[in-house]
Amino acid sequence: MRYYSYPEFLRDMKLLVAKMADFRPDAIVAVARGGLTIAQMLCEYYDIRQFYAINSTLYDGVKRLDSVHLANIPTIDNAKDVLVVDEIVDSGKSLATVIEALSSAHPWINFKSAALFQKSTASFCADYYLHDPGDVWVEFFWEVDLLRD
Amino acid sequence: MRYYSYPEFLRDMKLLVAKMADFRPDAIVAVARGGLTIAQMLCEYYDIRQFYAINSTLYDGVKRLDSVHLANIPTIDNAKDVLVVDEIVDSGKSLATVIEALSSAHPWINFKSAALFQKSTASFCADYYLHDPGDVWVEFFWEVDLLRD
Repeated sequence: MRYYSYPEFLRDMKLLVAKMADFRPDAIVAVARGGLTIAQMLCEYYDIRQFYAINSTLYDGVKRLDSVHLANIPTIDNAKDVLVVDEIVDSGKSLATVIEALSSAHPWINFKSAALFQKSTASFCADYYLHDPGDVWVEFFWEVDLLRD
Repeated sequence: MRYYSYPEFLRDMKLLVAKMADFRPDAIVAVARGGLTIAQMLCEYYDIRQFYAINSTLYDGVKRLDSVHLANIPTIDNAKDVLVVDEIVDSGKSLATVIEALSSAHPWINFKSAALFQKSTASFCADYYLHDPGDVWVEFFWEVDLLRD
């Protein structure tokens, strides 16, 4: 278990925007709930008002493969380059399904994806990412700080 | 100008959930971009997967009153008690317009609103809030931390 604090997050976000120097999005899509705080900070950083959210839920399959359920797939207007953000790419199924759904609904948009953590074993790799968590479970500050004393 | 740091935010979020002890939402709507980080933390706190965003932009009127433009008004399914969150209620027009639009689209839902800051001069008052910023401009950590060295 690795606790991921706000100071660590802020340091990482600075590294992430430096990595994305070649890409200037005009809209941001957060995979909810995981990507919300990241998205807000990036919207402010890039001064982007075009924010969208998409809900992705991964159902654990018992006999079958895991399946991803998407909800609230947004309609994106007036954007050419769109960044999709999530906190972690684990199996890769969630982000792959999100990018596929968004791309098929908006074939004229150039979608790029970013995540803080990217598992090397995932079937999908984000365009921009920082760390491989390996087998360690990451506990993000937004998940646990409010529940602690 | 008042800088509002992450530690301050976390302390306030603990006060806010204590204030909301009588209300248990089953879905959360963030007014984007302002309410995104608050919403993510509350979704985790209440273990809510039903997250929605709504975009509200306030246009400064020159000769006329300011007007609010809403985009991506969500369709909320299977929820009875819904919390709408924003970071600050300034004139009150944005949150009032959001609540009105959501209520008229979902008359069977009980909407409550929460904000960190509530101006006493606003025309609309959130159901739950913490501070009156007075005439001081609040700079939230998610707006400025990434832009600083």
